[in-house]
Amino acid sequence: MTSALLNPLVTRLSPPPIPAVQAWGKSYDGSLGPLIDLSQAVPGYPPHPDMLRWLGEAASSLAYTNYGAIEGETSLREAYAAHVSQVYGAKVGGGNIHITSGCNQAFMCAVMAVAAAGDTVLMSDPFYFNHETTLSMLGIETGFVACDSANGFVPTLEAVERALTPHVRALALVTPNNPTGAIYPPERLKAVFDICQKNGIWLILDETYRDFLPEGAGAPHFLLGEKNWQDNLIQLYSFSKSFCIPGHRLGALTAGENVVDEVAKIMDNLQICAPRAAQGAVARALPALIEWRAGNRHEIDLRAKALREVMKDLGGWKLEAIGAYFAFVRHPFESRSSTEVAEHLAKKAGILSIPGEYFGAKHTQFLRFAFANADAETIQQLRSRMVDFSL
Amino acid sequence: MTSALLNPLVTRLSPPPIPAVQAWGKSYDGSLGPLIDLSQAVPGYPPHPDMLRWLGEAASSLAYTNYGAIEGETSLREAYAAHVSQVYGAKVGGGNIHITSGCNQAFMCAVMAVAAAGDTVLMSDPFYFNHETTLSMLGIETGFVACDSANGFVPTLEAVERALTPHVRALALVTPNNPTGAIYPPERLKAVFDICQKNGIWLILDETYRDFLPEGAGAPHFLLGEKNWQDNLIQLYSFSKSFCIPGHRLGALTAGENVVDEVAKIMDNLQICAPRAAQGAVARALPALIEWRAGNRHEIDLRAKALREVMKDLGGWKLEAIGAYFAFVRHPFESRSSTEVAEHLAKKAGILSIPGEYFGAKHTQFLRFAFANADAETIQQLRSRMVDFSL
Ligand SMILES: Cc1ncc(COP(=O)(O)O)c(C=O)c1O
Ligand SMILES: Cc1ncc(COP(=O)(O)O)c(C=O)c1O
Repeated sequence: MTSALLNPLVTRLSPPPIPAVQAWGKSYDGSLGPLIDLSQAVPGYPPHPDMLRWLGEAASSLAYTNYGAIEGETSLREAYAAHVSQVYGAKVGGGNIHITSGCNQAFMCAVMAVAAAGDTVLMSDPFYFNHETTLSMLGIETGFVACDSANGFVPTLEAVERALTPHVRALALVTPNNPTGAIYPPERLKAVFDICQKNGIWLILDETYRDFLPEGAGAPHFLLGEKNWQDNLIQLYSFSKSFCIPGHRLGALTAGENVVDEVAKIMDNLQICAPRAAQGAVARALPALIEWRAGNRHEIDLRAKALREVMKDLGGWKLEAIGAYFAFVRHPFESRSSTEVAEHLAKKAGILSIPGEYFGAKHTQFLRFAFANADAETIQQLRSRMVDFSL
Repeated sequence: MTSALLNPLVTRLSPPPIPAVQAWGKSYDGSLGPLIDLSQAVPGYPPHPDMLRWLGEAASSLAYTNYGAIEGETSLREAYAAHVSQVYGAKVGGGNIHITSGCNQAFMCAVMAVAAAGDTVLMSDPFYFNHETTLSMLGIETGFVACDSANGFVPTLEAVERALTPHVRALALVTPNNPTGAIYPPERLKAVFDICQKNGIWLILDETYRDFLPEGAGAPHFLLGEKNWQDNLIQLYSFSKSFCIPGHRLGALTAGENVVDEVAKIMDNLQICAPRAAQGAVARALPALIEWRAGNRHEIDLRAKALREVMKDLGGWKLEAIGAYFAFVRHPFESRSSTEVAEHLAKKAGILSIPGEYFGAKHTQFLRFAFANADAETIQQLRSRMVDFSL
């Protein structure tokens, strides 16, 4: 008898980071008050009651029990296309939309549509870890666009140009950024997109946190209005954060219709269609819960303010970047790794955060705080816990 | 400006087959009565009313809105492990189960866990088309185990041995089979498994139609009781057909705990976790709806009988194989392709079926009938429509 082999591209990946971090929290003894969970990005408030009602109505309905259209429910594709058109001041139709089971899946579909094993896809460094592991497990080579605190963690055009090689098929960026929170300005995105057009590569733009831009910020960018955008742009979104329904697994990809057709081939293999009932419910919620979402944006602005306040003169801790949803915080323990610091901060101070090195080895001086998870009052409690914290 | 390139592994795939076939149905004028849809395998009866109620309760509950465990809800993993243990007379625990968003996704996870681009995975020929396209888009080479009507479309050991090469990582089989309906006997599966153990390759067994084995059939096989089964077996299942909820997207993978850990890494990238609310509902339904499922098995037995009756002396048509859910039917138009025949049968006679060549080029003399979709009375109407049918 001979055991069969596993795929080394998968075995060499570390176990999923979030459960590992959450396990640290279980060792915290509660002596400083309840655990403050700033690890996985999840809104610290519940979905709107109507959202729950619509989810329940749809899930108990015979209308959604059968297989659905691979690309998504027409109702949601149309409602989301109208929403995208409004957000970006652009003209996007239902045919430009592919619904997926969350934005991680939208990313996987996007990269599979444009790259095979052996091709190269570029990411920012620091990067969103699931982007990196998705590429690795597919045998796609990764290249990096260095982003540093001096530039507010926004990629410079020089850094993008430097990362280009003949094997590059796509550049994947996240704005507002995970992990740094950095918001890439529309002009920078336009200039990066020009580089992509000039070099015949795809810009894959993950905008999971778009709805949490500061109040009064205008359109995130104008790329969906650019000439021939369909030939070089794939835009990704998640319904998880904005509607507080990650457990229902819905995301969306916006692209040219020919890209949507290729993604449909991938999705047919990968899961036939996204779960249908939640699609029906979100199609209702998209126009109906506009004001509620605006209220959440305001709430998250307040949380950002509270964190800025807390982090002023906080021993050697330094808020290096803060934006929509995330802050990237420099810890004061220069000789210790971010994993050691995060683990101890969880176990001793009851603060769950993600070690910076999970987003790239060189970011070991940082922790990521998903501050949007906690209300302002809870955020204020960070001060006393962090001031007294030592390793 | 230069358009960016698409992945040739994806562009070269044909568009998803089911929507193409369904489009033919739209050209049927209804003159012979309502369309009889024997194309996509979907139960022709609704889910149990309790199932819908539980789905609605779970979806409207706050308990399932957040991200869940990657491997699946503990409640469902435990309930399903108990069910599997009972069906196979084996001892399987919750740690052996990974919940996925349907069985296509379970297959994709299984192959990614064991094979990378350039490796080879074997399938039966005829094959389930999504298995073939999943492998192709991942750059995994495919090899084939020829199955023919002389052997009831059950793979022979010689055919398996013949297909082995040093690059083979896994053999993927479907029993009860899609498209032929063939039910692989437990002894044959044991002998095939022995070959896999001897050669250090994985047996990936898709048992989506297991609940529709003829009444009184015993365990589908005893492989989950074999010594060291965990080193060579990955077993797949779908909740779509048995619970009539394909739109809710749930499947399961049963394997050794180390394989489950690798699949969790893949799933974290691919969609974080399967949709949660439906998992909670199915955990309740698994034990509660045993009798209802037994009733459906009986009903599908009746449908198989009806189809056998219909196909007796039906011009040149010949029922080459029939089993759980599917029949593989030889059409009488020797000089015409299965696609031509299926298209005309849809448009002129209002019978939707899948062309045999979709399951492998050499099966162009066949059509696949998903007879379980239609009740016995509807199946009886096939006779008059097919007797008069000409090309
Ligand atoms: C940048 C980014 N993309 C995608 C995702 C995944 O979101 P979803 O729940 O839609 O899969 C996350 C979740 O944290 C994220 O931070
Ligand atoms: C053999 C086989 N495997 C998997 C599937 C996919 O099932 P699911 O709906 O669970 O993805 C099907 C559906 O037709 C099938 O026939």
